[in-house]
Amino acid sequence: VAAPKAFDELKTRLAQVTDINRVRRILGWDMQVMMPAAGAGARGEQQATLDRIAYDIFTAPETGRLLEELRSYEDSLDPDSDDASLLRVSRKDFEKTVRIPADLRTEIVKAGTEGFMAWRLARPANDFESFRPHLEHHMELRRRYVELFPEADEPYDVLLDDYERGMKASEVRVVFDRMKEELVPLVAEARELYGDDDGTLARAFPKDKQEAMAREIIDLFGHRENSWRLDPTVHPFASGGGVDDIRITTKYEPTGLESFFASMHEYGHGLYEHQVAPELDRTPLGGGVSLGMHESQSRMWENLVGRSRPFWRFFYPRLQERFSPLLDDVDEETWFRAVNIVQPSLIRIAADEITYNMHIILRFELEQDLLAGNVEPRDLPSEWNRRMDEYLGIEVPSDADGVLQDMHWGTGTIGYFPTYSLGNVMSVQIWERIKEDLPDLDDRLERGEFAPLREWLGEHIHKHGRKFTPQETLERAVGSRIDPEPYLAYLRQKHGAATPA
Amino acid sequence: VAAPKAFDELKTRLAQVTDINRVRRILGWDMQVMMPAAGAGARGEQQATLDRIAYDIFTAPETGRLLEELRSYEDSLDPDSDDASLLRVSRKDFEKTVRIPADLRTEIVKAGTEGFMAWRLARPANDFESFRPHLEHHMELRRRYVELFPEADEPYDVLLDDYERGMKASEVRVVFDRMKEELVPLVAEARELYGDDDGTLARAFPKDKQEAMAREIIDLFGHRENSWRLDPTVHPFASGGGVDDIRITTKYEPTGLESFFASMHEYGHGLYEHQVAPELDRTPLGGGVSLGMHESQSRMWENLVGRSRPFWRFFYPRLQERFSPLLDDVDEETWFRAVNIVQPSLIRIAADEITYNMHIILRFELEQDLLAGNVEPRDLPSEWNRRMDEYLGIEVPSDADGVLQDMHWGTGTIGYFPTYSLGNVMSVQIWERIKEDLPDLDDRLERGEFAPLREWLGEHIHKHGRKFTPQETLERAVGSRIDPEPYLAYLRQKHGAATPA
Repeated sequence: VAAPKAFDELKTRLAQVTDINRVRRILGWDMQVMMPAAGAGARGEQQATLDRIAYDIFTAPETGRLLEELRSYEDSLDPDSDDASLLRVSRKDFEKTVRIPADLRTEIVKAGTEGFMAWRLARPANDFESFRPHLEHHMELRRRYVELFPEADEPYDVLLDDYERGMKASEVRVVFDRMKEELVPLVAEARELYGDDDGTLARAFPKDKQEAMAREIIDLFGHRENSWRLDPTVHPFASGGGVDDIRITTKYEPTGLESFFASMHEYGHGLYEHQVAPELDRTPLGGGVSLGMHESQSRMWENLVGRSRPFWRFFYPRLQERFSPLLDDVDEETWFRAVNIVQPSLIRIAADEITYNMHIILRFELEQDLLAGNVEPRDLPSEWNRRMDEYLGIEVPSDADGVLQDMHWGTGTIGYFPTYSLGNVMSVQIWERIKEDLPDLDDRLERGEFAPLREWLGEHIHKHGRKFTPQETLERAVGSRIDPEPYLAYLRQKHGAATPA
Repeated sequence: VAAPKAFDELKTRLAQVTDINRVRRILGWDMQVMMPAAGAGARGEQQATLDRIAYDIFTAPETGRLLEELRSYEDSLDPDSDDASLLRVSRKDFEKTVRIPADLRTEIVKAGTEGFMAWRLARPANDFESFRPHLEHHMELRRRYVELFPEADEPYDVLLDDYERGMKASEVRVVFDRMKEELVPLVAEARELYGDDDGTLARAFPKDKQEAMAREIIDLFGHRENSWRLDPTVHPFASGGGVDDIRITTKYEPTGLESFFASMHEYGHGLYEHQVAPELDRTPLGGGVSLGMHESQSRMWENLVGRSRPFWRFFYPRLQERFSPLLDDVDEETWFRAVNIVQPSLIRIAADEITYNMHIILRFELEQDLLAGNVEPRDLPSEWNRRMDEYLGIEVPSDADGVLQDMHWGTGTIGYFPTYSLGNVMSVQIWERIKEDLPDLDDRLERGEFAPLREWLGEHIHKHGRKFTPQETLERAVGSRIDPEPYLAYLRQKHGAATPA
C-alpha cells in the first residue's frame, strides 16, 4: 500500500518537532559546555520558546486529526514496520501529551526551575528546610499529574512511564526486592574479599594524559569518522544533534581516573544514538528507547567491558606506558582490584558496581512513599538516613551528602531513579546473549577488537530506536523481559566469596 | 498612555521570532566552530525548520492585524521611544517580508545552498564555467525579487536595503566615485612611501602565544565578565546568543599576526552587540543596525585603534616581550610600518587599509552591471581582470584568486559588498566626533585606557540597536549622513606623500 498523503503530512509535522527537540539538546549541551555563564538568562528564554513551539505543533488538533485519519492505514501494515511503529508510538505520545493541561505543564516547568535554584543553594548550605517547600510543591504537582491518568494500576506507574515507557512499578518492585535480598549479604562478602582501598586510584594522574586516554578509548571502541566530540564538563553527560553529531563529556579530576570510566560510560550512551537506523532519523522514533535501555548500554561499556579482565589484559600495559612512571609499581592484578573494589559509601555517583543499586532502591522506595503520602517531605532526611544505615551500614553525616546529594528531586523529577538499576540488570541479560552469539567475545576484547560487540548492539538493539517499547526491545534481543538473575549471578561470580575477584 | 493589550501580544510574537533567530545564530556558530563535520546534513534540516517556523510566525496574518490595530498607539508616541521604534521597524520588516512569495523565498534559499556547494568546488578547481549556471540562476532570482518592489528608484536599491536599510545605490555611487578619484593616486604615493615589504610579518609567531595575545587584547579592550568566548575558525566571524553571550572567532596561521588583527576586528562586532540597550533585548531592535554600521565598529577597533601610533606605543613593548626573542631586533617604527604597509594585492580579505576599498568598489560596480544585464556572467572573469588591472595595476593569474575568491556571489548574495567600505567611511566620521568629545583620546589609548572609547560607542551608537535607520543612527552620533571626506583626509594624512607614515 502506498502511504496516503496524510501520512506525509504527519511525518512533516513530526520532523519539525524532532528538529526542534534536537536543537534543544544542542542548546543544552552548549549551555553546559560552551556558553559564557552570563548568557543563561537569554538561553532560558530561547529554550522556553522552542519548547512551547514544539508543544504547540505536536499537540495541535491537526496532529490528532491526521492520526485518526491514518488508523486504517496503520491497521493495514505489518506492526513491526517503520510506518506502523511511527503511528503507534506517536499516537501514544500524543494521547499522553494532550491529556496534560497547558497550565499544569507550565507550572511543572516553572517549579522545576525554581526547585533547581533552591536545591543548588540548599545543598552546599546543608539546609534541607529551605528546599522542603519546593519538594512539597513538586509532590503536589505530581499528584495532580497522576490524577489525569486514572486508568493506571498505581500512581507511580504514570511517572515511571515518562522515562521507561510501559514499565510498571509492580514489576520494578519484584526485581528490586530480589536484588535487595541478594545484594545486602553480597556487599559484606565483597568487603571481606577486597579489603581496604590501597590508594592506587588516589594517585595524581596528569590531566593532559587523562584527556589523551579518554580520546584514545573512544576511538578504540570505535565510531564513524568526523561525527563525535568529547569535551570536559562538571557533570558528564551524552548529547548530540543527530546520528552523526554525537557529543559526550567527561570530567578530569587532579587525582584518580574517573574521567576514563565516565568516558566509557558516555561512549555507551553515544553509541546507542549513533547506531539508530538512518531511516528513523528526523522521526520521533530516532533515538534511544528509554533511560533504562540507555543505561544498559552505558553501564555495559563502563563495567562489563571497562571493568573486565579481558579489557584490562589488553589495556593495562598501554595505560601503564602512557602514565609511566606513575603506575610502574602497580601490577595488573592490583590495578584490576583497584577499579573493582566494593565499599559502601555516601554518594550514589561514586558508588561501586554492587552498592550503586542499593542507592537506587532506597530512592525508588522513598519516591513511592512520598507519592503515597506515607513519608512526608519533612521526615525525608531521617527516613533517608535510617535506610542508608539499614542497606549499607553507612551513617550520613549531613543532608548535603545525604538526601540533598542529587539534582533529580531538586527539579521535581520523580520516577527517573529506578531506570539506572534497570539498566544494570538489562545490561547483563544482553551481555549473556551476546556471549552466546559471539562465543569468542572475551578473546576479542583481550585483543582490543570491539567491532563485533559494537555491531551486535547496533543490529539487535540500537537500530530499532523507539519502534518498540523498552521491554519489547529487550525481548527481541534476548528472548525475555527484565530478569534480575543473570545480573545477580554476574555480581556473585565477580565479587562473591565463592570465587576470587 | 499605557500600552494596549495588542502591543503585548505583538511583543510576545516578536520575542519568539527573535529567540529563534538567536538560536539560529548559535547553531551557525556551532556549525563552524564545534560541530563534527558529519553532522552537517541534520543541521541543515534543523536550520531550515527553524527558519520556516520563524517566517511563519512573523508573516502570519495575526502580525499584520496587530500592526494595523496599533497604528493609533504608534501615532500617540514619541517617535524616538522604544515602543514607537519597535512598531515602525517591525512594520517595515513585515511589509518587505510578506511581499516575497513563499516559493521564491524557498527557491532563493535552495539556490544559495546549491550555489555555495558549486562555488566551493569551482574555486580550488579554478573552474568558473562550472559555477556560471549558478550565478545566472542567482541573477534571475534577484531580478524576480527586485520586481516585487517597483517603487524602488533602481533595482540595486532593493538588494542593498536588505543589508543597509534605507541606503540608496545613488548615494553609494557618489561616495565611491569620490573615493576612487582620491584613492587611485594615493595608492601610488603610499607605495613610494612604504617601499617593499621587509618580511617582518612573515616571521613564525608561535601559535600558543598568538592565542594568548588574542585573549589579552580582547580583555584589555574590555567587556562584562563571563559573557564572551574566543575560538579558532577557518573564517573569522562574530556571533552570539544575546547581549551577554558574545562569541568571536579568529584564525591562527603559522606565520604572521593576522589572528591578532582579526581578533580586534571581531571584537568591534562583538562589542556592538554587547552594548545594545538591555530594554531592546528579545525584540527585533536588539542588535546592530546594519552591516555597514557593524563594519564601522570592527574596522575602528582593527584600524583606527589597532593600527594607530598611540596603540602601538602602548602595546608594542608588551608584544615584543610576549614573543621574545622573535621581535628583539624590530623597533617600534619598523613594526608600525609593517602593520600599515600599502601594497596592491589579489585578495580582498588580505588587502591593506587603502586598497581594500578598491576591491569593494570593483565588486559594487560589477554587481550593478550584472543586475542591469550590462555584463553577462560569462564575461565576468574578463571584466574582473580588466578592472583589477585598471584600479590596482594587478594582473590576475587565475579565477580562483580573482572572480571566484569570495563566497558571497557563490551563495547569491548581491548588495552586501558595498557595506564593507561604507563601514570604513563611517568609522572615521565617528572617530572624528569621538575626538571632539574626548580630546585626550590618543593619550588614553597610549596608556591602554579603552573604557572611554568603549563607553562613548555604547552611549552614542550601540545602545540604539535597530531603533533608527543606519543613516539616522549615524546622524544622531556625528551630526551628518555618510560623507567620505573625513575618511579620505585620514588616509591621506596617514599614508600620503605629504606626511611621513
